[in-house]
Amino acid sequence: MTSASQILQGNRLALAKLLTQIENNTTDGRAALAELFPKTGGAYRIGVTGAPGTGKSSLVNQLALHFRRSEALGSMRVAVVAVDPSSPFTGGAILGDRVRMRDLLGDPGVFIRSMASRGSLGGLAVATSGVVQALDAAGFEIILIETVGAGQAEVDIARLAHTTLVIEAPGLGDDIQAIKAGILEIADVLVINKADRPGVENTERALRSMLQLGHPMVRRFQSHTRETGHLSTDNEAVGMKTSSEKPELPLWIPPIVRTIATEGQGIPELAGAIEQHRQHLQLSGEWSQRELNRLHAELDLLVRETLMSRWLSRTPPENYQQVLERVIRRELSPWQAADELVKEC
Amino acid sequence: MTSASQILQGNRLALAKLLTQIENNTTDGRAALAELFPKTGGAYRIGVTGAPGTGKSSLVNQLALHFRRSEALGSMRVAVVAVDPSSPFTGGAILGDRVRMRDLLGDPGVFIRSMASRGSLGGLAVATSGVVQALDAAGFEIILIETVGAGQAEVDIARLAHTTLVIEAPGLGDDIQAIKAGILEIADVLVINKADRPGVENTERALRSMLQLGHPMVRRFQSHTRETGHLSTDNEAVGMKTSSEKPELPLWIPPIVRTIATEGQGIPELAGAIEQHRQHLQLSGEWSQRELNRLHAELDLLVRETLMSRWLSRTPPENYQQVLERVIRRELSPWQAADELVKEC
Repeated sequence: MTSASQILQGNRLALAKLLTQIENNTTDGRAALAELFPKTGGAYRIGVTGAPGTGKSSLVNQLALHFRRSEALGSMRVAVVAVDPSSPFTGGAILGDRVRMRDLLGDPGVFIRSMASRGSLGGLAVATSGVVQALDAAGFEIILIETVGAGQAEVDIARLAHTTLVIEAPGLGDDIQAIKAGILEIADVLVINKADRPGVENTERALRSMLQLGHPMVRRFQSHTRETGHLSTDNEAVGMKTSSEKPELPLWIPPIVRTIATEGQGIPELAGAIEQHRQHLQLSGEWSQRELNRLHAELDLLVRETLMSRWLSRTPPENYQQVLERVIRRELSPWQAADELVKEC
Repeated sequence: MTSASQILQGNRLALAKLLTQIENNTTDGRAALAELFPKTGGAYRIGVTGAPGTGKSSLVNQLALHFRRSEALGSMRVAVVAVDPSSPFTGGAILGDRVRMRDLLGDPGVFIRSMASRGSLGGLAVATSGVVQALDAAGFEIILIETVGAGQAEVDIARLAHTTLVIEAPGLGDDIQAIKAGILEIADVLVINKADRPGVENTERALRSMLQLGHPMVRRFQSHTRETGHLSTDNEAVGMKTSSEKPELPLWIPPIVRTIATEGQGIPELAGAIEQHRQHLQLSGEWSQRELNRLHAELDLLVRETLMSRWLSRTPPENYQQVLERVIRRELSPWQAADELVKEC
């Protein structure tokens, strides 16, 4: 039996082995992915991102438990992919696994995978995408994709996910403001975790004014924005709006949800906001647009990787070394050297 | 006169224009860089990285002022490159400029440049490297390269810099520990900023134990580690060690320096630690090794970019579109699609 068919039958060990092959980008891994790819498309992908110190891992933990225990949704199978792009040298994400395991250990409907960067630009995004595809084909209905840090990895996640949560927390310092500006634009739902900390009002006010400055939907419909209540995300607060110009097209303004993940507070409301966003994606037709953008971005990335590995296999190391030495002697600029190396190929 | 020769004569406007061309990766920008490249190699590059909330910008500000005012060093010309990989959509780094300008405004020996990501993987690293080359050729003796966030960008910075500072601050939350593990391995000097905050002892203890666990040099020479004093980095504390096995080769253990950047405290000590590291690089021969690694990494990145742009220019958009549609219909997996697109090229 192929590893792909074992995985489709629910074999966890075969799945774990395939994920390792995907991470290592082996030929076998790619063949299995090709076999599994037609079975993908059933999972709902939730991206979770935010600065260090916001309590992302606890929140992901609680969301996973919520989806497992939800009676309304019929106890969905949940996978967690924790991506740690800041650990290029060590496999630093292992710690996260152990912390999470306490609550989710032994539950056959949960699968947790940590991934650390392999040091290659783009390599992590390619591997994460493949891992998510495999989990999707394996029948996990919810896939939570968590990243540590704030950077290109988050943008790539926004492309992978149907709904992207951006997590904030009160009292994380001053220059965090600068971070948020860019990251806000990928947010579908904003979460203020650790909402029992002092300064939560300031954090919410700052987020709200940044939303008004920075979010394209909000810029267009500023007059519609208003305050939401504490620890609540009812239909009012979720912020689905109808444009006055095109009344048939619903628009999405990221709601702000307060949570205290360590105590499980605000988690049902957050799950509600995610569900509202899912419905919005389907009603507005944005779902298929996101699917298109995601596959387009992934294809671009894979073309890059394929071009590079083909070039590496065709270029003798001595040629590369000779050109590099001319750069070191300042005879060639790096761009000239790259042109020369690629021309020969 | 070419823009390159204007820049070599100290024309700031020509320099600013070239940096924009480099950011936009224009043909003119690449030609000017090729002309300037033989003049590079004179600058000392200092990378500054750390989580949000650690006060990196203030610290970079104070270091710039220190190098400008230093009598011992004869008032060096200082450039600051602030890289913000978390702002892929907006040009979020502009704020940083304005904050900094208050202290450094109008000083002709200072040049400040903010850069935001253009959204392309690798594009920011390529652009930053080009900007640093241009500033180097323009005669800036110190180049401070600052990044926001924690991720691949920091690793790329570590490759660009001679000395990499990793900034921490007390009281930034719990899961920050997970971040540090990877980022610590690129640190040449560890800085605890905001050292007047409660919890500074805990932060230093945590850093020290992580150093012992995680740093390759420290792992090998654990028995040599010891405590440093408060706000001091004298020769004792800088931690240059001689291996007992190979007495002729000096080894570097990252010292921990406490600072309060907003009050200028600890800045001379930090500058001292940087100078010690510079001497270490020269004595140990690591300088030329780092130079080689840096140019190697840059050449790899440029080969990738060149391969992709050549491929784009050769591939008709219709072909790409057709293959993408087959992926969307799940007839081809993304890897198969990439293989097919590259094969045709």
